[in-house]
Amino acid sequence: MATTSVNELGRRAKAAGRVMATASSATKDTALRLAADLLEQRSSDILAANAADVTAAEGATPTQIDRLRLTESRVSSMADGLRQVATLPDPVGEVVDGSVRPNGLRVQRVRVPLGVVGIIYENRPNVTSDAAGLCLKAGNATMLRGSSSALRSNVAIVACLREAAHKAGLPEDAVLLVEDPRRETAVEFMRLEGVIDCLIPRGGASLIATIRAEATVPFVIDGDGNCHVYVDAAADLDMAVSIVVNAKTQRPGVCNAAESLLVHRSVADAFLPRAALALDGVELVGDERARGIVPGMAPAGDDDFATEFLDLKLAVAVVDGLDGAIDHIARFGSGHTEAIVTTDIRAAERFCREVDAAAVVVNASTRFIDGSELGLGAEIGISTQKLHARGPMGLRELTCAKYVVNGDGQVRG
Amino acid sequence: MATTSVNELGRRAKAAGRVMATASSATKDTALRLAADLLEQRSSDILAANAADVTAAEGATPTQIDRLRLTESRVSSMADGLRQVATLPDPVGEVVDGSVRPNGLRVQRVRVPLGVVGIIYENRPNVTSDAAGLCLKAGNATMLRGSSSALRSNVAIVACLREAAHKAGLPEDAVLLVEDPRRETAVEFMRLEGVIDCLIPRGGASLIATIRAEATVPFVIDGDGNCHVYVDAAADLDMAVSIVVNAKTQRPGVCNAAESLLVHRSVADAFLPRAALALDGVELVGDERARGIVPGMAPAGDDDFATEFLDLKLAVAVVDGLDGAIDHIARFGSGHTEAIVTTDIRAAERFCREVDAAAVVVNASTRFIDGSELGLGAEIGISTQKLHARGPMGLRELTCAKYVVNGDGQVRG
Repeated sequence: MATTSVNELGRRAKAAGRVMATASSATKDTALRLAADLLEQRSSDILAANAADVTAAEGATPTQIDRLRLTESRVSSMADGLRQVATLPDPVGEVVDGSVRPNGLRVQRVRVPLGVVGIIYENRPNVTSDAAGLCLKAGNATMLRGSSSALRSNVAIVACLREAAHKAGLPEDAVLLVEDPRRETAVEFMRLEGVIDCLIPRGGASLIATIRAEATVPFVIDGDGNCHVYVDAAADLDMAVSIVVNAKTQRPGVCNAAESLLVHRSVADAFLPRAALALDGVELVGDERARGIVPGMAPAGDDDFATEFLDLKLAVAVVDGLDGAIDHIARFGSGHTEAIVTTDIRAAERFCREVDAAAVVVNASTRFIDGSELGLGAEIGISTQKLHARGPMGLRELTCAKYVVNGDGQVRG
Repeated sequence: MATTSVNELGRRAKAAGRVMATASSATKDTALRLAADLLEQRSSDILAANAADVTAAEGATPTQIDRLRLTESRVSSMADGLRQVATLPDPVGEVVDGSVRPNGLRVQRVRVPLGVVGIIYENRPNVTSDAAGLCLKAGNATMLRGSSSALRSNVAIVACLREAAHKAGLPEDAVLLVEDPRRETAVEFMRLEGVIDCLIPRGGASLIATIRAEATVPFVIDGDGNCHVYVDAAADLDMAVSIVVNAKTQRPGVCNAAESLLVHRSVADAFLPRAALALDGVELVGDERARGIVPGMAPAGDDDFATEFLDLKLAVAVVDGLDGAIDHIARFGSGHTEAIVTTDIRAAERFCREVDAAAVVVNASTRFIDGSELGLGAEIGISTQKLHARGPMGLRELTCAKYVVNGDGQVRG
């Protein structure tokens, strides 16, 4: 496909999308299971292609290499992911709501595929199969645009998905890879108006900025998570310690990890020393009041409170109360996940109502805000915007609702 | 506000949005009713401002003048519209769905306001009050950017809305007008990232193109309607005549009027002469086969089939069957509303499943696809895109869902 133009690929994706829209759940699940089998059968080919990508990745950081590298076990995880998606209920055809109008018209909203979903992503080749699998299950054609550093890996993975689709009786163009590595092609891809119904970027801040500046097709931003835990005056402090430690350290490199700790001043003296002890190994930076309680804490400025560390580092602030916590979050939060620890029902309710984020959590770790923990089965990203999808995006978020109206000759007076 | 920068207005809108998000339904309804009263009390001021706009509108077409002009009765309609919105159920707080996870976490999705809704629109000053009223009811702050030709009218209308909000105890900045008429300001407005949560354009193709090219905030396109009526082989031909006449002529200037008629070849000889007679006064253009049946019909080319006439003009094609109709619609449709007239359940079901549009209609006029006819109460536009909202957008589409998760100390293992 290397020499095929983005426009031509778009035409093929759109044609495939029309066929996919009416595919049965059984056919789509067969395709997913066949793709899983093919990934495993061909894992040595995939690993060889990936090894060539890794070899070619001169000057990449260790983190970038880690994201790029596949192993036997990562390929198995990709295959298992596809099998897992095959077991999920098909969202297509669900009647979302319905009513009968006074004139007898029967109105339904029915869940249907989006059509063509575009995915633009960096490095990680496992996104290729994870994203395409979810899109396929939801009845969409998928156009993938990975980074050039992962091209050989992506070509090998996409070949399995296309062959599986074909064997199951679906169009192989249900999964298409834009192979041309030039930046112009990425921009063309973001401008496939009338072809791409939803563009989902998976990557860092510069990719998101490019999408905002260049894309003319509708998109959903999978943004950063600058998540807070607020320990209220009425918190159970044992619970608070356990939640803060979990939210910060259980997996610090992910978007739903906590980056800041806010503490009500009335419990700061009692709580912060215990928290600091329990957060052994975590670099703590804090505002003046926090530093007055925990000796040796380095000072934290606005930059720290605005940063998604993705590391064993936590910014700490003492706030005057719930209002202070809500204001701090309004100023620094990224709209991902915000948690409160409290036994006061009024504080919990105000926090939930007044904090503007995809998810608000009472008395639990921020780490629960992902697709599998919330029961979505799998996720294609976590939206920090408000349009279409907010929070973890699963199969439902890869569909839309169509009005189906049945009458017996009604005309408008 | 004329000299206030767009950024400063944005800051004020965002602050107002935070207050609006927790306003009670009663307070919001009071504001709407007070605004309705003020519009009527000050109708002579509003009409004077409008008269100045009309006088200044040199070189405008009669249609543009008609859209710009307010009358006593149009102001009353605006007031009644606000009172009607006050009677609608408040979408905010609705629990969309919920479940308990195996670990005991209680997960709910709760409907909340979007935050700040931006409306960019042309001419019609009634949009000012209609749009702001719906946004206010849904708990949003509204930033309005009308055309400079309607500035005096918009200022007068917005003053009523702001005063009513203030009197009801809401921030007057819940409704803000960007008064600066320069194009640069419009572009700044479309790029208020972190402020505008949803931008809704109401206007023609060039506005939509500008939004796609320039906007960096999320937007929903209120697009054109190139709607078709397909008369199937198994149609009740009396019903078909009545539906086609209604869809074309009941109000030809609106987006849900029919623009093309597709007829199955097996009933074309019987149907088309009757339809042509009933469509007296409508200019018919057709493909070769249609012209062979209806004498004197002018030829229709691809351009005609792709055009939203918004007038008493209809393009007619004879198709070989359901597949031909579906393919024609896939090629020329704008994704708004598509209708089939048939007594064949299999044809109806295939049409509903395979036609990709915001609304598919069986045995009724396309004219029913609007907010009030479908029971939404009022609409802020009709979306022809698939993300967030598809079809008529009412109060629900001016909200989003937030995850609210309640636990008792759960941490992730």
